[in-house]
Amino acid sequence: MRTLIKNGTVVTASDSYRAAVLIEDEKIIALESNPGADADEIIDASGKYIFPGAIDVHTHLDMPFCGTITADDFTTGTIAAAAGGTTCIIDYALQTPGETLQAALDVWHQRAEGKCAVDYSFHVAVTDLNDAVMAEIPALIKKGYPSFKVFMAHKGVFQIDDATLLKVLKQSGEAGGLVLVHAENGDVIDVLVKEMVAAGRTEPLYHALCHPPQAEEEAVNRFITMAEISGAPAYIVHLSDAGALGRVADARLQGLPVYAETCPQYLFLNIDRYSEPDFGGAKYVMSPPLREAGNEEYLWSGLASGNLQVVATDHCSFNFKGQKELGRHDFTKIPSGAPGLETRVQLLYAGGVNEGRISIHKFVDLVSTAPAKLFGLYPQKGSVTVGSDADLVIFDPEAAFTISQATQYQNVDHNPYEGFTGKGVPEKIFSRGRLIFDSGKYVGQVGHGRFQPRKPFTGL
Amino acid sequence: MRTLIKNGTVVTASDSYRAAVLIEDEKIIALESNPGADADEIIDASGKYIFPGAIDVHTHLDMPFCGTITADDFTTGTIAAAAGGTTCIIDYALQTPGETLQAALDVWHQRAEGKCAVDYSFHVAVTDLNDAVMAEIPALIKKGYPSFKVFMAHKGVFQIDDATLLKVLKQSGEAGGLVLVHAENGDVIDVLVKEMVAAGRTEPLYHALCHPPQAEEEAVNRFITMAEISGAPAYIVHLSDAGALGRVADARLQGLPVYAETCPQYLFLNIDRYSEPDFGGAKYVMSPPLREAGNEEYLWSGLASGNLQVVATDHCSFNFKGQKELGRHDFTKIPSGAPGLETRVQLLYAGGVNEGRISIHKFVDLVSTAPAKLFGLYPQKGSVTVGSDADLVIFDPEAAFTISQATQYQNVDHNPYEGFTGKGVPEKIFSRGRLIFDSGKYVGQVGHGRFQPRKPFTGL
Amino acid sequence: MRTLIKNGTVVTASDSYRAAVLIEDEKIIALESNPGADADEIIDASGKYIFPGAIDVHTHLDMPFCGTITADDFTTGTIAAAAGGTTCIIDYALQTPGETLQAALDVWHQRAEGKCAVDYSFHVAVTDLNDAVMAEIPALIKKGYPSFKVFMAHKGVFQIDDATLLKVLKQSGEAGGLVLVHAENGDVIDVLVKEMVAAGRTEPLYHALCHPPQAEEEAVNRFITMAEISGAPAYIVHLSDAGALGRVADARLQGLPVYAETCPQYLFLNIDRYSEPDFGGAKYVMSPPLREAGNEEYLWSGLASGNLQVVATDHCSFNFKGQKELGRHDFTKIPSGAPGLETRVQLLYAGGVNEGRISIHKFVDLVSTAPAKLFGLYPQKGSVTVGSDADLVIFDPEAAFTISQATQYQNVDHNPYEGFTGKGVPEKIFSRGRLIFDSGKYVGQVGHGRFQPRKPFTGL
Amino acid sequence: MRTLIKNGTVVTASDSYRAAVLIEDEKIIALESNPGADADEIIDASGKYIFPGAIDVHTHLDMPFCGTITADDFTTGTIAAAAGGTTCIIDYALQTPGETLQAALDVWHQRAEGKCAVDYSFHVAVTDLNDAVMAEIPALIKKGYPSFKVFMAHKGVFQIDDATLLKVLKQSGEAGGLVLVHAENGDVIDVLVKEMVAAGRTEPLYHALCHPPQAEEEAVNRFITMAEISGAPAYIVHLSDAGALGRVADARLQGLPVYAETCPQYLFLNIDRYSEPDFGGAKYVMSPPLREAGNEEYLWSGLASGNLQVVATDHCSFNFKGQKELGRHDFTKIPSGAPGLETRVQLLYAGGVNEGRISIHKFVDLVSTAPAKLFGLYPQKGSVTVGSDADLVIFDPEAAFTISQATQYQNVDHNPYEGFTGKGVPEKIFSRGRLIFDSGKYVGQVGHGRFQPRKPFTGL
Repeated sequence: MRTLIKNGTVVTASDSYRAAVLIEDEKIIALESNPGADADEIIDASGKYIFPGAIDVHTHLDMPFCGTITADDFTTGTIAAAAGGTTCIIDYALQTPGETLQAALDVWHQRAEGKCAVDYSFHVAVTDLNDAVMAEIPALIKKGYPSFKVFMAHKGVFQIDDATLLKVLKQSGEAGGLVLVHAENGDVIDVLVKEMVAAGRTEPLYHALCHPPQAEEEAVNRFITMAEISGAPAYIVHLSDAGALGRVADARLQGLPVYAETCPQYLFLNIDRYSEPDFGGAKYVMSPPLREAGNEEYLWSGLASGNLQVVATDHCSFNFKGQKELGRHDFTKIPSGAPGLETRVQLLYAGGVNEGRISIHKFVDLVSTAPAKLFGLYPQKGSVTVGSDADLVIFDPEAAFTISQATQYQNVDHNPYEGFTGKGVPEKIFSRGRLIFDSGKYVGQVGHGRFQPRKPFTGL
Repeated sequence: MRTLIKNGTVVTASDSYRAAVLIEDEKIIALESNPGADADEIIDASGKYIFPGAIDVHTHLDMPFCGTITADDFTTGTIAAAAGGTTCIIDYALQTPGETLQAALDVWHQRAEGKCAVDYSFHVAVTDLNDAVMAEIPALIKKGYPSFKVFMAHKGVFQIDDATLLKVLKQSGEAGGLVLVHAENGDVIDVLVKEMVAAGRTEPLYHALCHPPQAEEEAVNRFITMAEISGAPAYIVHLSDAGALGRVADARLQGLPVYAETCPQYLFLNIDRYSEPDFGGAKYVMSPPLREAGNEEYLWSGLASGNLQVVATDHCSFNFKGQKELGRHDFTKIPSGAPGLETRVQLLYAGGVNEGRISIHKFVDLVSTAPAKLFGLYPQKGSVTVGSDADLVIFDPEAAFTISQATQYQNVDHNPYEGFTGKGVPEKIFSRGRLIFDSGKYVGQVGHGRFQPRKPFTGL
Repeated sequence: MRTLIKNGTVVTASDSYRAAVLIEDEKIIALESNPGADADEIIDASGKYIFPGAIDVHTHLDMPFCGTITADDFTTGTIAAAAGGTTCIIDYALQTPGETLQAALDVWHQRAEGKCAVDYSFHVAVTDLNDAVMAEIPALIKKGYPSFKVFMAHKGVFQIDDATLLKVLKQSGEAGGLVLVHAENGDVIDVLVKEMVAAGRTEPLYHALCHPPQAEEEAVNRFITMAEISGAPAYIVHLSDAGALGRVADARLQGLPVYAETCPQYLFLNIDRYSEPDFGGAKYVMSPPLREAGNEEYLWSGLASGNLQVVATDHCSFNFKGQKELGRHDFTKIPSGAPGLETRVQLLYAGGVNEGRISIHKFVDLVSTAPAKLFGLYPQKGSVTVGSDADLVIFDPEAAFTISQATQYQNVDHNPYEGFTGKGVPEKIFSRGRLIFDSGKYVGQVGHGRFQPRKPFTGL
Repeated sequence: MRTLIKNGTVVTASDSYRAAVLIEDEKIIALESNPGADADEIIDASGKYIFPGAIDVHTHLDMPFCGTITADDFTTGTIAAAAGGTTCIIDYALQTPGETLQAALDVWHQRAEGKCAVDYSFHVAVTDLNDAVMAEIPALIKKGYPSFKVFMAHKGVFQIDDATLLKVLKQSGEAGGLVLVHAENGDVIDVLVKEMVAAGRTEPLYHALCHPPQAEEEAVNRFITMAEISGAPAYIVHLSDAGALGRVADARLQGLPVYAETCPQYLFLNIDRYSEPDFGGAKYVMSPPLREAGNEEYLWSGLASGNLQVVATDHCSFNFKGQKELGRHDFTKIPSGAPGLETRVQLLYAGGVNEGRISIHKFVDLVSTAPAKLFGLYPQKGSVTVGSDADLVIFDPEAAFTISQATQYQNVDHNPYEGFTGKGVPEKIFSRGRLIFDSGKYVGQVGHGRFQPRKPFTGL
């Protein structure tokens, strides 16, 4: 089966050029200026960009959390991903204290298998380190799981101490893994939360005030110190704060292999959202929280300057009705997280490329190529090249969009970007050569998505 | 005429993959996994990389300077370029005070025309600003010269004052130009030089001591301030000092469009060279000078972190005999400059990629893609893509090299890297589809090189 | 003649304690807990502080500038000084290009002699350097003028180039002098002013917009670089900007002998003042200009942390009527400067000590002791110690004040702090043992003030 | 009883002047230029300085640690203090987990009472926080113990977590206390120590390698973050590293009430000491360890610039024979600590004032005035003023010294500064009006030293 996409402009993390893309079965086999006619199907991409399928390296689907379970499972989540031009996700398998990492992976594999619209893989979160778990780390890297998450926050739940952090960094680094961190000081948050609750300050805004930017900057600094001492590469998830970004920039300037991702919510939303009426601020309860207005622009500069390498979503959706409402009288009971899997690519294109903040190459790099390289999916995924998976987005830069819950695929009763408008729409999405999304409609088959084992870390 | 290069690995600033490259006349027309057989010539690149031809955006050929003239002219220089995998250069046309910028271009065009082995273009150096010259700036951008050099050093010769600097930045920035700066404080240098000479300190080492790193860091800081005030993009040539790099990094983190190049001499050599016996230090008299040992590694980190975007050469060769010797009793009379056009690519590959300091993609970006983009040559040049010029380097990563004056194409009686060894050799060089260098021999035709008008600045 | 001040609390830059102060003629001869009764006059200072007389190291009295002459001369200015607790000033003698430094001193001595209510001394501003002037520098240090001012701003008038700056620093530093700088980039200002005027933007606010904070930060950075290269101590006058302060802090942390003064206007006023109606903003036209709101607090932190060592006034008064009005249609014609000699001490006490921003010791240090030490007046002046001049302020910390032009001694038709209220009033002022100001009235004799030759620089 | 010290030069943290000092019983009652003759004893201090008695705010006497007990108890330690010009110490009472802070104070009071040659006071170290201990904090501040120490290092022994740190800061800050911290990341140290020991690296040098400077810089940064969030003043003990100093400087520039002490060992010694033969490096096993050569000069600059406010000793002496030797085969068993109480003043004078690194006023401030102010002893102690305790040092700036174990009063079998020579010797020491040390001989009475309750924190 051969498909030819012609007349479009191929855009990669470094290049853009007019060429036809020839797909055979699951792979791209040629890029040509004058294509032949020997294709089973020919698609005209005149006036369109051909991007590599986007990769979202930070999702939480079908995850029990805060006494409830995320609104999106692997089916609704990955269809939403496809709708937004994302053809591969990496979700997090969380170790249950006392159990093995493999046990966590088994659970998550079971949740995902046969249910995905796009390809998927897993990071493993280490919450309870012992000698057996230490031994699992190199073994799992060999099995295709070269990335380990640790939490410096969520005291009493996921939070590890610095000794554990350093040991995981050393063990992972020596075996070719990358350590990912949720960098906030959980002790600070814990003290402040208890104070706020004791003082009767229970509205959603206090969630943000209990997660001060200093607590993030401190944790980022500490994590970088550990990374430097260990010699291991290190990656900060959902970096939200300008001060924290400054620490990353310092580390990188000194030559340390430190990487960081931010998320659309920190680029487009700010702390004012917590004051939406009727408990509306609950929709934005997430960790780290939204920051002061003005902070967003520093993060955009971080993307442009190369100090932030990835934009992912931390997609973790909960319905307002019945879920976010659990915390109506106590912000600590609001399930923490927000949806975003479906809107990341459009938002970044419109806010980044159209607004002149980042180049179109940087855009592709942030949503696809850098994630693929950092997490061992490249060159199979993350670019439009001969031999890579035909995960492609035919993107119409002139089409207008309005984001709305009413029209989304995400299975959740609100959208944090409700009413956002812009230009640039993923029109057709291919996953390994199959058209799975077309002009607003999902046309794929659930179960098409396949687990992707990943290669050890090699840098960008 | 069609040429097929098969079995190689194409490497771009973001990608690497096995593909055949199909060339028709001057252009790449296809990248394929299973090429057909309809080529006039087929080249087997098994085990080789296919890089885009490198671009050296900082050369001085056939230039009168310090009372003499550079040892390399456009013929010897561009053959040396080809030998080193460089298929396009941008040289500097220097305004004579009192005359127009166009007059300088006319002189330089005459020097280059019909004499080049590879393609070439020109920056214009502004040394004497008046209203007529202000008017020339937008006109020249339209004519294909979108980059203007100014000097903060060379007091009494090329040095401009800050008002001129700011005016050039504003004028150039508004019209789509990029301002390039030699960032050293010329007043400081002038005072120190006079002191040294008066004190009888005339050996080559004193050249370095009269150009302290602080004088560079200061000028870089000042230039960035001007760029910020003007809103214009700004580019620092031959950045040599870790402190100066820190200022660039700060500016970039704040979102300023500030760019910087460094050169192999600052990555591989240090101040100890000035103490070579028998006046040997004179070979390394250049501005900025070689810095303290240890400084090199900061620059490497600057390349890896993205804070330095370009590696160029500032190739400006003078023979030791008869030229450098002019300053045997007074370092101020040593013609300032060193050769490097031929060795840049190999050195950066061996010291950077082989040593694990930068990825192979970063390497390609530094020597080819970023220069092409910043200086308006992209996408015609700077990558291996469908539709771009077939400027290609077939590079053997396993071949060993030893740098020596005895075997070089550079027309100069020494080589600053004499005896350096490493692995990775440009084996075959194509310029617009023509094989011009093959296995150590120049096989092209002088005059093949063509002037390249360039597009206005659009960023990276 | 003996005077005993008893029951007060002596406060110095490091100490505070209850003690009687015994004065004999011009000097303090004892500090005692149980004083004898052998004084000619006994003053009860119960509930009062006894501070050393304040020193204002930055005044411009009887100075021709901008085509007019300052409103205050040495008589009105020094009476106002006395009224505000200042018992010594250092004014600036400005070299006329082509003439000697001594000639400038002669002029200024003539202006001051016999006309001063408090002691006085002179800095010398170097505007035109040649070999003869270079030779004057060490000679003048020996004669009691160990401080030399240079201007990096005022292009075409006072501005010197970097070579001159470096030469003055070297010459002064070797001979025991301190170089003072007006640190703004005059070229930037010049370009911006011409643009604004050409664009018809002539209101007072544009004065501020033509003096951007970056132009100050840049100049401070450059001056520090020169100081580092020269090895000489360096002092920045009227530092106004948080960014510039950061550069000073960096230099000091590295061990460089870099000092800086700020002024009350930058601690209490901000850019909003330029929008006062009816051309009222003209009153605040000074260089550097008032900065954005919020900047003030950074300067207060700079005082508390020790990164700023001196608070002086840059007192340079012009009447609104007839003087400031000269620039009603063109801000460049507004005489630049504002009064402040009379209000410095109260403002700093009320805003600093009462508001908890600085300790009372730091307050004394900023207005008296550090200035005395840095400028060679210590220990004769600058503290309350045995053997020092009986320049004393009996200060009532509980007395309320309201600043007003109506009640001031400054000979100018407005007051930038009109309506400011606070607590803490200089009640009695002694100059070398003589009571010259008492409860709001000048009771001294014009001509009492004496020229003070100063000692070479020794640091703090 | 009246004593008159005449002909000397009184030196305080801000002043120096010739005056006679008149003492009545325990207090200074007058400073006079022409003293009367009504004294019981007259001491001629011609050519001498009169300093306030130095205060050492960081000692460990008679302390059980590492399975042994310090070589100096309160008698030998305070005689050594007196010998070195120190007339007041603040030792540390360490809470036993599970017991109250008061219980610790009771133990330490018992150890000191009746045994001291000079005055003394106690900080309280919090190692186990619960509600009862939280309640003790304000109560103890009222009782004269306004300073609380916490440890970020010594994992499993003294180390507290960040929540405890934040709670102590808040509780102490609100009640007028100052929190002192040992800032090293104990988790990092613990991981590294176990690795080193497991690898058989047991020589003293490995102690230093297990305490990398990054672990200190990280902890300092974290502590400052906590201090900022809590709004409390914060003090870092024994700061040893240039990077850590940079963090303190940043905090201070932002206006945070952050203070830091360093110690002579970090100003005069470096990591090379660990390589002394015959296990000699064990003498320098302390935490933080001695740092790389070159680091010392950054600390000196920190003193000069005001970013470090105190020089204390962390005196914690163990004999080489029988104590340090416990770790001959395992550096973790070497009792950690070194003597210094006797040599601090001379070393700082010789290395600081004589070498031109700090002024004589800064010297006095660092060893006496700032400690007195920060820890609530001022104005009773810390200066030479009317009404303060007659704790005085008559210091001969011309007398030469050679430091040697053979001649010291410290009760320990080595001296880290053995063989150091310099000029400047404390000749006569007065404690509350009593001469206790004279020309090399202790002439006081053990038991003369009295407990000093201290006032709440008010800043410098």
